[in-house]
Amino acid sequence: MDVNEFSIIDRFFKNQAMQDPSVIIGIGDDAACLDIPDRHQLLVSTDTLVQGVHFLKEWDAYDIAWRSVMVNVSDIAAMGGVPRWVSLALCLPDYCETWLSRFAQGLASALQCYQIVLIGGDTTRGPLTITLTIQGTVLANQAISRSGAKVGDGIWVSGELGAAALAVSLLPDGPALLKDKKALMDKLLHPVPRLDLNTLLHQYASAAIDISDGLAADLYHICERSGVGASIHLADIPIHPLVKKYQVNPLEMALSGGDDYELCFCAAKEFSAQIRSQGCYYIGTIEQEPGLRAFVNGSIIDLPAKGYSHF
Amino acid sequence: MDVNEFSIIDRFFKNQAMQDPSVIIGIGDDAACLDIPDRHQLLVSTDTLVQGVHFLKEWDAYDIAWRSVMVNVSDIAAMGGVPRWVSLALCLPDYCETWLSRFAQGLASALQCYQIVLIGGDTTRGPLTITLTIQGTVLANQAISRSGAKVGDGIWVSGELGAAALAVSLLPDGPALLKDKKALMDKLLHPVPRLDLNTLLHQYASAAIDISDGLAADLYHICERSGVGASIHLADIPIHPLVKKYQVNPLEMALSGGDDYELCFCAAKEFSAQIRSQGCYYIGTIEQEPGLRAFVNGSIIDLPAKGYSHF
Repeated sequence: MDVNEFSIIDRFFKNQAMQDPSVIIGIGDDAACLDIPDRHQLLVSTDTLVQGVHFLKEWDAYDIAWRSVMVNVSDIAAMGGVPRWVSLALCLPDYCETWLSRFAQGLASALQCYQIVLIGGDTTRGPLTITLTIQGTVLANQAISRSGAKVGDGIWVSGELGAAALAVSLLPDGPALLKDKKALMDKLLHPVPRLDLNTLLHQYASAAIDISDGLAADLYHICERSGVGASIHLADIPIHPLVKKYQVNPLEMALSGGDDYELCFCAAKEFSAQIRSQGCYYIGTIEQEPGLRAFVNGSIIDLPAKGYSHF
Repeated sequence: MDVNEFSIIDRFFKNQAMQDPSVIIGIGDDAACLDIPDRHQLLVSTDTLVQGVHFLKEWDAYDIAWRSVMVNVSDIAAMGGVPRWVSLALCLPDYCETWLSRFAQGLASALQCYQIVLIGGDTTRGPLTITLTIQGTVLANQAISRSGAKVGDGIWVSGELGAAALAVSLLPDGPALLKDKKALMDKLLHPVPRLDLNTLLHQYASAAIDISDGLAADLYHICERSGVGASIHLADIPIHPLVKKYQVNPLEMALSGGDDYELCFCAAKEFSAQIRSQGCYYIGTIEQEPGLRAFVNGSIIDLPAKGYSHF
C-alpha cells in the first residue's frame, strides 16, 4: 500500500468524521467549506501538543488525541461558544498503524462527545506534534472576551485546581501515590472542558478565560486586557483534595499549575448568589489598581503573575 | 524579560496584525471572534511545514514564513475563495530574537499581500514546525471542489510546472547552475498562489485543485473524487524552461514534482477559447473510464498517479 498523506487521512480519519449538514465540503479537498448559521460569529483557536512537552511518549495515543481535543474545546468554552469543527495537523516520526488507529479512536470519541466534526487535516513526517484548530460559533456580539472585567466585579473559579499540575509533577511515576495515581492521571489525561457553564457565562460573566497556564497567570491576562487589577483571598481558592493531601505547598500548585481547564470569570456582584448556586467558587474582586494582590492572614501582599511558561 | 508564549506573540506578531472590521476579537484571547459576511460560507485549510522536510535550517526565516502563508493561500485559491484570516501554531526549539523577528517580518509581508489578518497563535517549545490554518470566504454554494469534474470536460493547468521540484532536487546547492540558481530558488521560496484566477474559476471551472503534490497525483485526486478518469497529452504539459534546460527527463519532473502551486482545473469544452485567452494550458480530457492515461507518440499508456508522497 502506498502510505501517503492521502491514505492516512482516508484510512484513519475520514470514515470516523461525523456527517453534519453544516459541512458543505469536508475532508479530502483543498479546503473544507462550512455553513455558518445566521446571526452567529465564528470562534477560532489553535493549540499544539508536542511530545516531551505536553505529553510523554509512553502515553496511549487515544489519550493524546483526547487531550488535544479537550484543550481546544476549553478555549471555545471560555468564549461562551459552541465547538463545531476541527482540523488536525499531525506530524508523525514514522508510520505506525497501531498508534494511528488508537489516535483516530481517541479523536473520534472526543469529537463525538460534543458533536464536533473533523473537517480536514495535514499529515507530515517529522517529530510527533499535534496541532488542532477548532472552530466554534457564538451568537453575534455575544462572545465573552478577556477584556470585559469591570471594577467591583467578583472573580470566580469554576472548579478545584491543581490536580493536573500535581499529576505532571509526579510523572512518570509517583511510587508513594499508587492508590491515587489513577484519579490524578485522569485529571491530567481527561480534562472536562466547562461547556456546561455556557448559559451561566452568557447570563452573568463580564470576562472569562480558561485556566490553562495557572490561575494567577490567567487572571493576570484578564486584568491586563481589561485595564484593571485584582485582589484575591488565598483562603478561598478551591484546591483539589489530592493536592492538599500530597503537596507541602498546595496553594502554590493551585495558583500556578495549569492544565485543569477550569474557567476563571468575572461578574457583577449582584449575581453572586446565582453563580454560587451553580457550584462556582468566589475568590476575590476586580479593582482599579493594576496588578494582582492577595489577602492572606489579614494582610495584603503582591502576587506574582507567574504561571506555566512555555519558554 | 519573561520570555513566555504571551510575550512572543505580543512582541513579534500582535503589532504586525492588520486591523480589520471583520475581526471582533483578535490575538490575545482564548479564541478569535470573526464576522462572516452574509451569504458567504467559510473555507478552512491547514498546512504544516517541518524543518528538514519542507524547508532547510539554512533558509531565511522570512522566506519560511512567506512560503507558509502562500501554500495555504493556494488552497483557498483552488476553492475559488478569498483568503481572510490565519492562525499560526509555531513550534520553536529555542528563543532566537533574530529568527523570530525575520519570521514575523516575512509573515506580515505575505499576509499584507492579500489583506489577510493574523487572528491568533500558539507558540510551543519543540522541533521547528510551522502550522498555519487559513480561513477564507466564498459565496454560498459557489466553492469549487475536486468532485465536480464531468465526462467531456477539458483539463487545464494554470502555468508552467517543475521549477520548484527542480530547485528541491538541487538543494542545498547546484554548482553547475549558479547562473539560474536565483530564479529557481525564487520559484521554490516565493510561490505565487493563483488567486488571480478566481473569476475565471467561478465562470468556467467544474472542479479544481492546487498542484502541491504533482500534476499526476493531483489530477488523480480530482478523478477519484469526481468518479471519472482522464487522458492527457504529454506533449501539451507546460514544462518550465529551466526544467527543460537542466533535466534529462523534464516531463517526469513536471508530472510528479509538487510545490509549484499552480492550479489544475476542469471546464466544459465550450469555454476553451476564453480559458486559453487567459494564459492557461489545455492538457487533456475527462473520461468515464477511471484512472489516468497519457497520449504519447501516437499511443496511449497508463499513467501512474504518483506525486510527492509525505510518507
